[in-house]
Amino acid sequence: MDTSAQWIAGDWGSTRLRLWSMRGTEVLARAETEQGMATVAPEDYEPALLHLVEGWLGRDPTPALICGMAGARQGWAETPYAPVPTTPLATPMPVRTRNSHLNVYLIGGLSQTEPPDVMRGEETQIAGFLALNPGWDGVICLPGTHTKWAHVSAGEVVSFQTFLTGEIFALLGNQSVLRHSVAAAGMDAAAFAEALSDSLSRPERLAARLFSIRARDLLQGADPVAARARLSGLLIGAELAAARPYWLGQQVAVIGPDEMARLYALALDEQGVPTTRTDATAMVLAGLGLARKMLKAAP
Amino acid sequence: MDTSAQWIAGDWGSTRLRLWSMRGTEVLARAETEQGMATVAPEDYEPALLHLVEGWLGRDPTPALICGMAGARQGWAETPYAPVPTTPLATPMPVRTRNSHLNVYLIGGLSQTEPPDVMRGEETQIAGFLALNPGWDGVICLPGTHTKWAHVSAGEVVSFQTFLTGEIFALLGNQSVLRHSVAAAGMDAAAFAEALSDSLSRPERLAARLFSIRARDLLQGADPVAARARLSGLLIGAELAAARPYWLGQQVAVIGPDEMARLYALALDEQGVPTTRTDATAMVLAGLGLARKMLKAAP
Repeated sequence: MDTSAQWIAGDWGSTRLRLWSMRGTEVLARAETEQGMATVAPEDYEPALLHLVEGWLGRDPTPALICGMAGARQGWAETPYAPVPTTPLATPMPVRTRNSHLNVYLIGGLSQTEPPDVMRGEETQIAGFLALNPGWDGVICLPGTHTKWAHVSAGEVVSFQTFLTGEIFALLGNQSVLRHSVAAAGMDAAAFAEALSDSLSRPERLAARLFSIRARDLLQGADPVAARARLSGLLIGAELAAARPYWLGQQVAVIGPDEMARLYALALDEQGVPTTRTDATAMVLAGLGLARKMLKAAP
Repeated sequence: MDTSAQWIAGDWGSTRLRLWSMRGTEVLARAETEQGMATVAPEDYEPALLHLVEGWLGRDPTPALICGMAGARQGWAETPYAPVPTTPLATPMPVRTRNSHLNVYLIGGLSQTEPPDVMRGEETQIAGFLALNPGWDGVICLPGTHTKWAHVSAGEVVSFQTFLTGEIFALLGNQSVLRHSVAAAGMDAAAFAEALSDSLSRPERLAARLFSIRARDLLQGADPVAARARLSGLLIGAELAAARPYWLGQQVAVIGPDEMARLYALALDEQGVPTTRTDATAMVLAGLGLARKMLKAAP
C-alpha cells in the first residue's frame, strides 16, 4: 500500500509550524515544530520543511499548500494581500524549491484600507468554514494572540478587525506588576463573568480597573485564579465593547483554540448572541483543501 | 566647616534608590543607584544605604527619612498603609539598624478600600506639594510607570486611583507586535493630539485601535516616531477618559518626570483643564522635610 502523501497541508505561523500528510480530506500523519517565522531565515524554510516531510514524499512531486506567516515579508516569500471585500482565498502562489519532489504554494493574506488591518492565516480558516457551511452569512470570530473578527457575506470577507487582547493578556499577566497576583492558569467562571460585564457596560473604565487586581490582593489577599479570570474578563469585555458593531444582531461562528474559544462563546452567549463553535485545525485543513482545488482548476 | 548631613532624604523605589545629604532644605550632596526594592534582600538594605551615605555621616546619629517601596512587605520593613481620607503623611516608622550613627525612618503609604488601591512614595510628593502650596484644593496627577490621580481637599487625600498606562505603554512598545512599528524615543505632537482626541472621545474603541498602528505601517509604511506618539496618545486618552471623574471641573497639579508630565499637562490643557506643573524631586524633598518635622514634634 502506498502511504505517501497525496498532498501536504501546512500552517506556518510566527512561533510554530504544523504540517499534515493528506489523502483527499483524510489526515495520514502530522508533524509540528517550534520553528516559526520569527526564528527561521528565508533560506532555511525549505530545509526545515523537508526535514519534517521527507518521509511523506512519493515518487511524483507532492504539492504542499501552506498558509500563515511564511507568506509575510520576513517569511519564505512575500505573498500579496488581497484587499477586502473579496473571497478569502486567492490562487496560491508557487515558491521555487531546490528539491524536485516538492511543489510549494503559499496562501496570500487579506488587507483592509480603512481602518488599516491585515490578516495572514485566518483567511484560510474562514475559507474552510465557508466551504463546510456554504451560504453562511454572519460574523466569524477567531480568538488567538491576535483575535480577528470578520464580517462575511455572500462568500466574501466584507470587513475585519484585529484585537491584541491575547497578547496584552499575556504581557500583563506574565510581565507587569499584576503578575504577582495572577495565576499562570485556571479559570473562575463567576469572576470572569463579573469582570466581563463590568468592562462591557463601562469599557471606558478599563484603564482604571487593571491596577485594582493587584491592590485588592495586597489589601485583602485574593485568589490568583480569580484574579486571572478577572483580568481575562476585563480584557475580553473591552474587546467585545469595541467589536460591538461586528456581533450586534449577528450570528457568530467562533473558531479557535478550545479554552479561548470557549470564553469568547460564553461571553457572546451572555449578550444573547447566537454562537457556533468549530475546531480551528479542521478549518485550516478544509481551507487548504479548497486552495488545492483552486490550484488544480487554475489554467 | 562641618560638611556632614544634618539629615538624609531617601526615595527607595522598586528599581532605584536616590539619596540626598540635607541641611535644612538645602541639598549638600546626592547619590543614586539601581539597587531598587526589587533586587535587594531585607538584610541588605542597611549595608546598601551605608555604602552610599557613609561619607555624609557626622559624630552624632543622623536621621534618614526614606519613602517608597522600602516600606513594602518585600522591602526593608513593612510600614502600614493609612486608609484614605487622611493627611498624606503618618509619623515615620523607625527601623532598627546595627550602625549607631544612623537613625532610619520609613514613610508609610496610603490605601483605599473601594475601589481597592494603594500607593507608596507618591504620598510623600503629595505632602510636599501641600507643604509648598498650603490650602490648595484640587487634583494631583503623578505620571509614571503607575500613574496616580489623587483628589486632595483640606489637607487630606480624599480618594485616589492608579493607572498602569506607563507600564502598558512600555510593554506594548517594546515587546508586543507593535514594537516593529514603534520608535524607542521621540514625539510627534500632531499624531499624539489626534490619537488622544480619538481615544478620549471613543475610549471603548481603544482595543480596536492598537493593532492598526502595526497594520498601517505594513500597508502604507509609517513614521515610527509618529507611531510611538499615536500609541502614547491612545493610552493616555484612555486613561483620561477613565479618570474623568478626577479632573472634570478641577484644577490639576501635575507632578512627575519632565517628558511624561508635559504630555499629561498638554492633554489636560486641550480639555480646558487648568494645570500647574511641578518638579517631582522638589516635592519628594519637601515631603521628607515635613516628615522630619513630624518626627521632631512627636512625643
